[in-house]
This record gives sequence, structure tokens and C-alpha cells, in this order.
Amino acid sequence: MAGVSEVLSSTIARIQPLDAEAVAAAETAQAGLVKPAGSLGVLEALSAQLAGIARACPPPVPAKPAVGVFAGDHGVLAQGVTPWPSDITFVMCNVFQAGGAAINVLSRAAGASVTVVDMGVAGPYAEGTGPGAELVSKKVRPATSDLAKGAAMSRDEAIQALEAGIAVADQLVDGGADLLVTGDMGIGNTTPSAALIAALTGTAADVVTGRGTGIDDETLALKTGIVASAVERIAEGADAIDVLAEVGGFEHAGIAGFVLGGAARGVPVVLDGVIAGSAALVAQGIAPTAIDYCVAGHRSAEPGHRIALEKLALRPLLELDLRLGEGTGAVLATPIVQASARILNEMATLESVMAGGQ
Amino acid sequence: MAGVSEVLSSTIARIQPLDAEAVAAAETAQAGLVKPAGSLGVLEALSAQLAGIARACPPPVPAKPAVGVFAGDHGVLAQGVTPWPSDITFVMCNVFQAGGAAINVLSRAAGASVTVVDMGVAGPYAEGTGPGAELVSKKVRPATSDLAKGAAMSRDEAIQALEAGIAVADQLVDGGADLLVTGDMGIGNTTPSAALIAALTGTAADVVTGRGTGIDDETLALKTGIVASAVERIAEGADAIDVLAEVGGFEHAGIAGFVLGGAARGVPVVLDGVIAGSAALVAQGIAPTAIDYCVAGHRSAEPGHRIALEKLALRPLLELDLRLGEGTGAVLATPIVQASARILNEMATLESVMAGGQ
Repeated sequence: MAGVSEVLSSTIARIQPLDAEAVAAAETAQAGLVKPAGSLGVLEALSAQLAGIARACPPPVPAKPAVGVFAGDHGVLAQGVTPWPSDITFVMCNVFQAGGAAINVLSRAAGASVTVVDMGVAGPYAEGTGPGAELVSKKVRPATSDLAKGAAMSRDEAIQALEAGIAVADQLVDGGADLLVTGDMGIGNTTPSAALIAALTGTAADVVTGRGTGIDDETLALKTGIVASAVERIAEGADAIDVLAEVGGFEHAGIAGFVLGGAARGVPVVLDGVIAGSAALVAQGIAPTAIDYCVAGHRSAEPGHRIALEKLALRPLLELDLRLGEGTGAVLATPIVQASARILNEMATLESVMAGGQ
Repeated sequence: MAGVSEVLSSTIARIQPLDAEAVAAAETAQAGLVKPAGSLGVLEALSAQLAGIARACPPPVPAKPAVGVFAGDHGVLAQGVTPWPSDITFVMCNVFQAGGAAINVLSRAAGASVTVVDMGVAGPYAEGTGPGAELVSKKVRPATSDLAKGAAMSRDEAIQALEAGIAVADQLVDGGADLLVTGDMGIGNTTPSAALIAALTGTAADVVTGRGTGIDDETLALKTGIVASAVERIAEGADAIDVLAEVGGFEHAGIAGFVLGGAARGVPVVLDGVIAGSAALVAQGIAPTAIDYCVAGHRSAEPGHRIALEKLALRPLLELDLRLGEGTGAVLATPIVQASARILNEMATLESVMAGGQ
């Protein structure tokens, strides 16, 4: 990809295809376990993916999941696309730090750490570690520009935000994380998500635009019109970073970088809902192989998410009508990811059972 | 219900409707947590169900899940409905005891105990505790009669097997279990499952009969014909126990009793796949309120399971194309059940956040 930074191009260069030998070894191993072939369904394919990522069969069982919650605000809020005020973004970052949010509860249950990353929060965000999460700042600027009126950010800002996401992935993996989990916080961020999905999948705005955490018909019509107009502005031949800059959000850029960074480090990345799905499309546009490292934790109730997952060719592990974000659906799916690896590590083989070895 | 034993009728009498006050308190509490109303989807309804079962809001977080794997053999195997030999049933019980089966791996991951119950295993089943499971015997007799030729068991045997399932639920709850999980093992047991579902939902045999763990078109046609003929034999006015006796299996009866026993003790029961679904229909026929205590852990690939879940009005937590049985899909769903209770126990309220209490 032309016109990218040194950090970005070296990260892209480090993303290897999955190890085909380890994938094949996992498929062979699954067929030899003490159960009918194929009877563990999605868990079998997932275990083979983990083997390909780890370049080993059996793959290690992920023991240290780490959630990265990327937070940002959006200039498009000026258009009235959501009833929630932008202040909620930094208020929720404080709740994450204190440990009282849904993502904190579900992360404690899953044994996952939570790191909240300020990508572009408008309110008074302060770095520091609390009982619920570590807050770090990679702030590009306080909120994107209004995408209804022009580009949400410059290409340079988009690259800066992608690099920030890569840096967070590196920091977490350096700290021992062996399973990255994406999360987001940003009032109004289903609007840029819908625009990214429309632009990067070639789908009409009214198909991908939804009600987010809850808006009425009139607001939905307004939001859909804004998405349609913003996507129309994108120039012929624009690359994924251009699209991100024109209609995306800083947290979307952070998550896209986090996916690229995780893939470059050879660590699986569990994607949350529609914000993560749209960010993963950006990562796919930059480095398609990165998606081989991704697992779709769940499918949210937002209509664009289905379209995004189809383009990513990912099947969601959960479909529980979640539409909260924060990483809740992804972290809820981590026990399933771990279970699939445990199957390959711990199950007896048909051969050993038939030989009376059990 | 007429014509039942003292144990069965007293168990039915102990099954209370869920506590409507606790359910309402949970719904009110969910709406006051620091998230948009309804944004946790299925988790919210599940938490309210757990509150209703526990008769308290917030409900305690289930900490000690216990899997009951009910095992039995089937006379209908003489008809060639499956390529697997009946010996596999007791072989797998030994694998469960040794700890090498899928249910052992997934139960260890979930912190769940495994108890294997011989309801009617044909092979040399021996009681005893191994590293993977405790094996207990409630054997009615070694395998049911061939349901292609007549009743699979007598009504007295069906009641004896239902009582055995109740006794296992009691034993596990007395031992501290606060979440019961159903499992099954029985070569050929998708045939009686299909027959139970056809009879108890009024659905045609060719709609509910599937390929189990893998059969060809010819065997599927044979199996469907056997299911259709067996269901036709059921007399007008037969109750759920009569249906169970005519076309069921001993493990189905055990699971139905386990559901009744769990409900009578006020403990939630997570159902596994199509065998559990068909057994839960029997429990529903005996005591409809028992189903209020049930959670559908997953939906299996077997076509009859969808029909059974519709009649039970249960929405499955997972849909991962599992078709192994043993309780694998149910135990894989237990972290989601636990997470829903944790949400009500641990999340901050909007009020506390707005008051700066976070």
C-alpha cells in the first residue's frame, strides 16, 4: 500500500499467512479424537485457526485475554444523530476505570484485563489505573470533524490513529496478553461505522444504517441521509485509509490498528460488534491477511454488522441481540475460543481408547 | 396427572411458578444499570429468569455447575438406524470416567462436575469415581425394547426412570450444585428423540428426523419410517409418560426427571441438544412450570431440535452446529448464564454514576 508510514508498512510486512501445516495438523487431529468427525461444529474450525495462528498443533490455550477499549468522540453529533450527549463518552471511560461497567463485569468473569485508550475523547479524560481498567491516552484530537460536512480527519491523522492501535496491541502482547479483544466507546459511533461499511462493501446506506442504542424513525432517516451523502463524497480509487479518514472515527482507526498489530504479533483478535466489524474492514483493506487472525465474537443487532461479517467471511460465535459495544460481546465469547483450543490439547484419541489406553 | 407414583406427584407439587416480584425487580434493575435499556439483549431476560428462579434480585451467581450425563442403549438399533455399535455407549462411559471425552474437557473449563448415570446401558458398566467423572447406576434394564416393534418400555419402567432422574438432581443439589446441566450418551438415541418430538409437538416424522452423528440417505429414510410408525401406535389420550414409554429411551426419562427434580429444588437447568429438548418436552407434558427453570444451552444441527425449542418457547444461547451430545453445548453455555447473573450483581447504576458515586 502506497502513502503509508514506516511503522504501518513494517507492521503490514510482518503479518504472515497462517501456518498451513499447523491448520492441516489440527484438522487431522480433530478427526482422530474420540467423537464422530465434525460433531463439534464451529469449535473444530476455530481450533484449526488457532493452530494456524500459533504455528503449532495443538495450539496453546489462550490464558491471558486483554480487552482494548478504544474511545472517541464524533463531530457528526452536531447533526443530532443520537439522543445521547457527547459527555457520556468520557463519563463511561471513568466508569470503566472504576470497574462498574458491563465490560468490567464480563472481563472479570473471563479473567481479562481492560485497557481504555483515548483516541479522541472530547471531555476531560485523564490517564491512570483504577480498579476496573488502565486508562491510556493516544489522543489525536478531541473528536473528529463533522463527517456530514467534510472529511472526519486527515489522512495523516488516520495513520497516526492506526499507529496508536498498533502500539496498544504491542504493549498488551509485551505484557503477556495472548488473546486480544476489541472494545469501543464513542457516542454517535454507529454513524461512522455505517458509512465505513457502506463504502467498503459497496452497500446502500439504508441497508447498513441502524438504530444504534436506540433512535426514532425520524432520526434514523436523518442518519441514513448523512451516511449516504458522506459515502458519495469518497473519491474514485480511494484506498481504505482514505475511506477511514473521510467517514470514520478515531476509535475505528485505533481498532483497525489493533487488529493489524495483533496479526503482526501472531496473536488472535476477538472482534466485538458493528464498530469492530467496520474497523476490521479497514484493516482488511490495508492488509487482507490480518483477518485470518480475527474471530467474530458475536453479531450485534445493528444491520450493518451482518454485511460487514459477510465481507470479512467471519461467522459470529454468539448472537444474543447485544448492542452495547464496549467489547461486551467479544469478551463473552472468549471462553468458547479457549474451549476450542482445550479440545485439541486435552481430548483422548479414538486410537488410545480402542487400544484400552483410557 | 393421574397414574403417577408418590415420588413423582410430590415432586410435581413442589415446582413453584417463578417469583414474579423477583423477575420484575430484575427488569427494573436492568433498566437502571449504566447502559442503554435493553442493550444487553438476551442476557437481560436471562438474568430476570435467574432472579425468578432464585426468588431474589440480584440472584446469586451460579458457582457450582454439575453435569448429569444420562446413558442408555436402544433396542431399535436392531433395525440398523445408525452405523455405530451399541458397545460405544459403555466405552464412552469409561472415557467419561477417565476424563478424556469432550464433555470432560469442556466441564473442566467451566468448573463443572460430571456425573454419569447408567439408565439402561447394555454393556459392562461399572460404578465408581474416576478422574473425569463419577459413574452411578440407576439401571432400569440393559437397553429399551425395539420401538419399531412395540413399546420401548412399560409405564412403570418410565416412572422408575423419571424417579431416578429426580434422585440424581437431588443428590447433586444436596452436594452443593447450583446449576444443573443435562448430558446424554446412547448410541441410536436420536431415533427416540425424533419420535418423542413428533408425538409431543404433532409434527410429521420427516420434519423432525435427522442424520444424528452421520447417516446416509437410505438409513435416514429407514429411520424416518420407523419414527412415523412408532408415533402412529400412540393411543388417543395418551399422556406424556405414555408417550415416553412407547417411543422414548431410558436416558430421555432420566433427563426429564432431572429437569423436574431441578425445578422442584429451585435450581436452573441448562439443556443440551436434541435429546435434552425431547426429554424436556416430556417434562413439560408432566409439569409445564418446570420449563420456566430451563435454559436452552444451544441449538444442535438436528432438525427436530428447532421444533422442540419452539414448543418449549426457549431461545438457545449458542448455535455452533454441535451435534455431539454428552452435554457439550450446555456446559459451553454456562459462562453466559453466570455472566447474566454477574451483570445484576456487579454493574453500577446510572443513578450512582450521575451522582458521581463511581
